[in-house]
Amino acid sequence: MNAKGKGSNAERELVHKFWAAKWACFRSAGSGSNQYPTPDLIAGNNLRKLAIEVKITAFDRQYFSIQEIDELGEFGKLFGAEPWVAVKFSKMEWIFLPIEDLEKTPKSYVLSKEVAERRGHKFEELIGKE
Amino acid sequence: MNAKGKGSNAERELVHKFWAAKWACFRSAGSGSNQYPTPDLIAGNNLRKLAIEVKITAFDRQYFSIQEIDELGEFGKLFGAEPWVAVKFSKMEWIFLPIEDLEKTPKSYVLSKEVAERRGHKFEELIGKE
Repeated sequence: MNAKGKGSNAERELVHKFWAAKWACFRSAGSGSNQYPTPDLIAGNNLRKLAIEVKITAFDRQYFSIQEIDELGEFGKLFGAEPWVAVKFSKMEWIFLPIEDLEKTPKSYVLSKEVAERRGHKFEELIGKE
Repeated sequence: MNAKGKGSNAERELVHKFWAAKWACFRSAGSGSNQYPTPDLIAGNNLRKLAIEVKITAFDRQYFSIQEIDELGEFGKLFGAEPWVAVKFSKMEWIFLPIEDLEKTPKSYVLSKEVAERRGHKFEELIGKE
């Protein structure tokens, strides 16, 4: 399966997790390809809305482009949603971080596996069940 | 162009209108085909979120399945969004109605052009600019 297929599957896996937890969640059409800053996933309940950029990686560091994260923040402000990233490192559960917790380098944002383990939120923490 | 293509184009047209009005708006992936009740469009700003089912028609009456509208209401409750329909009748502007304003028949919900003209909201009214 190519990277795009893997990414879509990863997004679908998260969609199922949110619905199972009684949150509404859906993938946005044309995320990454349309002209507006649209996140991969939107999840919400009556109290909170989350805008989420989703990554899976076989490496120990996950990079995000400056534009990708800045647009996620911009979307969050306009739509009224908390901007988060969801990253699946190999042999780890999904972890979630607000974009403020990403490290900014001159050319990108980055999340290391070590920081993910230390500062990342598990799904149950993200949705406030733990 | 087939019905699906026309529907997608109609949704894109509305997406542009919302962004032009400084609302975030996007189409949801797999609307109508996935296992969860996901509306065609989501639009929002910091104050309001709208879940919208979109139709274009060459006829004087637009029908909606009971399931379609019930799921839109269900999604609205779970996600915390107002459930609306957007209908484009020929030679009319887009009109918007909350699902409570649709007429329910034993087999479907229906909106006639006459009711649309009388009770429908224009885009500017929907977003509170008029």
